[in-house]
Amino acid sequence: MKKENAEPQKLKIALYGVGSIGASIARLLLKKKGLEIVCAIDSAPNKVGRDLSDVIGTGEPLGIIVSNAPSEVLPATKPDVAVHATSSFLKNVFSQITELVEHGVNVISTCEELSYPHLSHRELAADLDRLAKKHGVTVLATGINPGFLMDTLPIVLTGLCQEVKQIHVERVMDAAKRRIPFQKKIGAGLTLEEFKEKMETGQITGHVGLEQSVAMIADALGWRLQRIEVGEVEPVIAETPVESEAVKVTRGNVAGLSQSARGVMNGKPVITLVFKAYIGAKEEYDSITIDGTPSIHEKISPCVHGDLGTAAIIVNSIPKVINAEPGLKTMKDLPIPSAVLEDMNRYLKR
Amino acid sequence: MKKENAEPQKLKIALYGVGSIGASIARLLLKKKGLEIVCAIDSAPNKVGRDLSDVIGTGEPLGIIVSNAPSEVLPATKPDVAVHATSSFLKNVFSQITELVEHGVNVISTCEELSYPHLSHRELAADLDRLAKKHGVTVLATGINPGFLMDTLPIVLTGLCQEVKQIHVERVMDAAKRRIPFQKKIGAGLTLEEFKEKMETGQITGHVGLEQSVAMIADALGWRLQRIEVGEVEPVIAETPVESEAVKVTRGNVAGLSQSARGVMNGKPVITLVFKAYIGAKEEYDSITIDGTPSIHEKISPCVHGDLGTAAIIVNSIPKVINAEPGLKTMKDLPIPSAVLEDMNRYLKR
Repeated sequence: MKKENAEPQKLKIALYGVGSIGASIARLLLKKKGLEIVCAIDSAPNKVGRDLSDVIGTGEPLGIIVSNAPSEVLPATKPDVAVHATSSFLKNVFSQITELVEHGVNVISTCEELSYPHLSHRELAADLDRLAKKHGVTVLATGINPGFLMDTLPIVLTGLCQEVKQIHVERVMDAAKRRIPFQKKIGAGLTLEEFKEKMETGQITGHVGLEQSVAMIADALGWRLQRIEVGEVEPVIAETPVESEAVKVTRGNVAGLSQSARGVMNGKPVITLVFKAYIGAKEEYDSITIDGTPSIHEKISPCVHGDLGTAAIIVNSIPKVINAEPGLKTMKDLPIPSAVLEDMNRYLKR
Repeated sequence: MKKENAEPQKLKIALYGVGSIGASIARLLLKKKGLEIVCAIDSAPNKVGRDLSDVIGTGEPLGIIVSNAPSEVLPATKPDVAVHATSSFLKNVFSQITELVEHGVNVISTCEELSYPHLSHRELAADLDRLAKKHGVTVLATGINPGFLMDTLPIVLTGLCQEVKQIHVERVMDAAKRRIPFQKKIGAGLTLEEFKEKMETGQITGHVGLEQSVAMIADALGWRLQRIEVGEVEPVIAETPVESEAVKVTRGNVAGLSQSARGVMNGKPVITLVFKAYIGAKEEYDSITIDGTPSIHEKISPCVHGDLGTAAIIVNSIPKVINAEPGLKTMKDLPIPSAVLEDMNRYLKR
């Protein structure tokens, strides 16, 4: 006999990676209904063994102890889906993802290179796709950028076009409004020399993912690019003194950075992505210009907050991934994004 | 033995409805590669029996004679997909769509009510879904509005949000830049009295589809609305004289119209759509404001050209529909929209 008011099943979530992004995803997950975090995995010695609530800075203990042993906690907790946030680079995360897949766990990752791995890592992507199909699970990497603002959204807008000649996407952020570690990461406050040195020693790496976004747009449009040109990470020099709460930038010093990537076809740049993050940006925006029939001029102003948006799109992708056919997917393969606002069970086809 | 340079198969398209929208879709189809129009269906006596090129105003005869007998031309030409553009109302098109489905033809329709039929026509929608599944075909209705700007796009943008309190969408068009029949349709140049009379006699009906867009957004977000309030079609009165090439509007007369619809939940409007089309609109735009975490302020300026965009999204939806599982779908069920720019075969999974 069916119980009246029987609790609907809760979706079981594994948290893989409890760094700054993983923690913000976890805090968002704790607010959502119809799901529960069943385990948390991280390799950092200062996190392992602590209660998750302690690591992510929420109140009451959750009874979830951060573990560095996925091979133990995954079979013990049998998650439906893992939220994975450990590294930007596919080579660093490949074994983590395959282990999740082999345990029959669907994966949503923030790994920038995995958002569209078919260009730079064709074989790894094919392997992962086969493995996911074999185990009947779906793997997706997404985020605000790459994953949404500079690839998914421009692709969506081309749906309005009969012809497309060129696509130009810009994301401009005022770093003063972001986390202090982010301000440091983009070199704000450094002299030009210090910036160059940190670039050379790999302490400033720039934003990862522009190449992936270009490749995903081209693939969606059926464009076969001759090449993708990824520009150097360039310092943005302060023309007047600017400052955030944490950093003062004198005139002539580095306020942040600028990067770009271009997809070239028939000798012409047909996709151009420009990313700028610096202290003192007068206007923050995400803009998309499609030169086509019709032409489209679209702008989100102010630009979408990266940390809030990343946690959102990761959590909002959970039902899309659960409902999808098995395999390695990208955002262009899944139904249109949408927010998860009510009990997770409302969005699941099961 | 496989022929070298064998021609890839061409997708066979039926054109159902050769009015103004159907003709613009046909002209776009003729520019695309990897597909061919195999038949054209229309009931208008002044079109039946003429070559399609003659009806749609292109050059060389196409050898496709407009027919009013789908039961003859469909089995004879075996189209893969029909592009259907005959009426805004589901009751008018239902038998047309079911006939296509029963002949094993996938359908993409411009029928506004079919873009999200699950609210106003729950039973017809369920019947159509069953029938489509039985015959292994997919049915979709789409367009610029409903179908994209006031439903699909706001839904996509909620993918960036952790929470959503309210969604406000506006589409404002300067009717002076549109077709003259459109200017007449919205009552431009009439006195207020004439406008009211034409409203009463059904000569001005306003825009169909706001209700469908509200329902589709709510469904995508998992919101269970208490009700959808569809506002009256309101005249926009010219405050100063305005004119287009075809119509002069004196001060105090009707420049066009305005409509709105609201989705109400917990006693509050959570979705508001506003549509305005009038001569003399100072700014033309499509804007979306999401009050949430984060809030999103998005704008396409100028607004997307309705006729160009409608033909585009219909044609661009062809591979999505062919690749989809059988059944009655809405835009929220399909992978993200994208432009068809190269040979159709590049986009098909078959």
